[in-house]
Amino acid sequence: MVSSHFRNILLKLGIPEERLSVLEGKGGLVEDEFEGIRYVRFRDSAKGFRRGTVAFENGDVVLGFPHIKRIVQLENGIRRVFRNKPFYVEEKVDGYNVRVVKVRDKVLAITRGGFVCPFTTERVEDFINFDFFRDYPNLVLAGEMAGPESPYLVEGPPYVKEDIQFFLFDIQEKGGGKSLSVEERLKLAEEYGIPHVEVFGVYDRRRIDDLYDLIEMLHSERREGIVMKSPNMKRIAKYVTPYANINDIRIGSHIFFDLPHGYFMQRIKRLAFYLAEKHVKGEEFDEYAKALGKALLRPFVESIHEVANSGEVEEVFTVRVKNITTAHKMMTHFEGLGVKIHIEDIEDLKNGYWRITFKRVYPDATREIRELWNGLAFVD
Amino acid sequence: MVSSHFRNILLKLGIPEERLSVLEGKGGLVEDEFEGIRYVRFRDSAKGFRRGTVAFENGDVVLGFPHIKRIVQLENGIRRVFRNKPFYVEEKVDGYNVRVVKVRDKVLAITRGGFVCPFTTERVEDFINFDFFRDYPNLVLAGEMAGPESPYLVEGPPYVKEDIQFFLFDIQEKGGGKSLSVEERLKLAEEYGIPHVEVFGVYDRRRIDDLYDLIEMLHSERREGIVMKSPNMKRIAKYVTPYANINDIRIGSHIFFDLPHGYFMQRIKRLAFYLAEKHVKGEEFDEYAKALGKALLRPFVESIHEVANSGEVEEVFTVRVKNITTAHKMMTHFEGLGVKIHIEDIEDLKNGYWRITFKRVYPDATREIRELWNGLAFVD
Repeated sequence: MVSSHFRNILLKLGIPEERLSVLEGKGGLVEDEFEGIRYVRFRDSAKGFRRGTVAFENGDVVLGFPHIKRIVQLENGIRRVFRNKPFYVEEKVDGYNVRVVKVRDKVLAITRGGFVCPFTTERVEDFINFDFFRDYPNLVLAGEMAGPESPYLVEGPPYVKEDIQFFLFDIQEKGGGKSLSVEERLKLAEEYGIPHVEVFGVYDRRRIDDLYDLIEMLHSERREGIVMKSPNMKRIAKYVTPYANINDIRIGSHIFFDLPHGYFMQRIKRLAFYLAEKHVKGEEFDEYAKALGKALLRPFVESIHEVANSGEVEEVFTVRVKNITTAHKMMTHFEGLGVKIHIEDIEDLKNGYWRITFKRVYPDATREIRELWNGLAFVD
Repeated sequence: MVSSHFRNILLKLGIPEERLSVLEGKGGLVEDEFEGIRYVRFRDSAKGFRRGTVAFENGDVVLGFPHIKRIVQLENGIRRVFRNKPFYVEEKVDGYNVRVVKVRDKVLAITRGGFVCPFTTERVEDFINFDFFRDYPNLVLAGEMAGPESPYLVEGPPYVKEDIQFFLFDIQEKGGGKSLSVEERLKLAEEYGIPHVEVFGVYDRRRIDDLYDLIEMLHSERREGIVMKSPNMKRIAKYVTPYANINDIRIGSHIFFDLPHGYFMQRIKRLAFYLAEKHVKGEEFDEYAKALGKALLRPFVESIHEVANSGEVEEVFTVRVKNITTAHKMMTHFEGLGVKIHIEDIEDLKNGYWRITFKRVYPDATREIRELWNGLAFVD
């Protein structure tokens, strides 16, 4: 149930009374709290408020981050999305999406699902100059948190060698969620020294060969891909490297039964379209095939052996925090998500940070493997 | 709607009036006709009558063929299903399942879905000695139709070099569907010269190494797998070779978007459990990975190129029939299934048979590839 205070806020935002009751009834609105700041999180979309939207007690609203459309045929996709018009090409960084916003006197980091993340909120001051929010309290910084020490992902991009980093890729207004133009964003990022995803330049469809070269370069450097954006941010499309597709499959195969089939099949599809578009043949084709097969099979077979030897399917994460209480808040956060976590180790790095190592266990995937390994006979 | 004649038959079989109305209401019962013989086909299960059950106008009932349970860990699966008891091991032949039955004075071949198949019904006299049905009118011969010239599958087992063959693997009673024991079945097959799936012998769990060798042999001969059966047919389990898993993926990848994700993922799962159980490592592991990757990617990429060059996703089938009318009946049968077919060629083989070549087109898979190739931007 949402309190009357939030009811009034949501009604004022234009959500009809009736819609509000339906949403509440099916648990689409959840009231939550972070260090004394209350907020409502949208678990479903409602009347222009996307899933992941957050409404704060003071009336501030941060819209859910929009899902960016994907293309799997680069040349035709660009023609279809951008026609002959120019577009910026920026790196798609492999991390987790956060929206950073100042509410009252606190800077908060919100995850895609609309949670204030205790870890990211604690760490975000290490990466972002908060003067920005003093000068622009009405703007939201959207970016990717990425690195080898992340609470949500087992891997980061190759150029983040330790810990985690923030990479800005969008600045939006509170409330309506309108994006600043690319130029305005880049100017502000420079002015305040906010780390930004790499900008590869302005392209148009006539430079398709340069884009192919860029994709090859990113692929060989084990980077995820690109996001193409019209200067006014009205048209956006993403495209990923074959490396990212295969690497995602490799990471997912370890927890095979915990992921929907579509996770794997979508990435196989993207890889196939890449091979078709680039007319990859012969030995090079076979190398991709082998890499895909190994990505699908090797971590999965290792997990089967692990379970066969009485182990569990699990992933290990490390994060660096300034306060151990932040680690405990993360555990509570994961519990709320129904995720099974154990803290394995807490190490004092003697530089103001603690390194927390924790293990995520996958009980369903473990059980499924165990049953099949134990000889379950089943109808499929 | 089911006519009152069939209503009475179904009521007499013990399906409650109410259940019957519900089944009819959702289209679970379909009345059909083949050369003057009327029948009702069960599209859903109902009170012991499995999907695919057929009730004929004379009261004869042929139960839907039961789904045989699968194991993916051979040693533990055998222990769990058969304990220390012996079981027959028979070949699992890669074809389509038919139940052959005499109704009034006609021998009919029924597909898994409960259709009288015009093609199989015409051809079945080439493989089965009909004296059997004169002597045992109450028995149903269940077997696999397999070969390179099949209306339902693009490939057959390697040892059927041309046309198609019937391979018996079960004899059941009309009505209750009780199976004869393996010994009785083998005796009757021999007595009437009915071709039978290969029987590899009687095994028990102490001979697991012989079974591993058998699987290796079948794998290297490009055969599908085994079905293990207690002598009284009460306990049955199937296990397939890695060859079959990879080959099915190769065949399916050609029509990637026409198959559910599970089709591919189930086979990847089976392959992973094989590799885990046999502790396949090093180069041999990589060979499997490469074969899997090629199976997933190569036919799929070929289909993308085909569609990119204004073609369609399609499969070509050939069948041998004695009467051209049979080919036309098959076309009508496919139309009824919503399958898009074109006859490409009719050739007189001058030996009493016509060879019909037809093409199955996959409009949905074609459209999906075309849209993606043309640069569709989509949210996934």
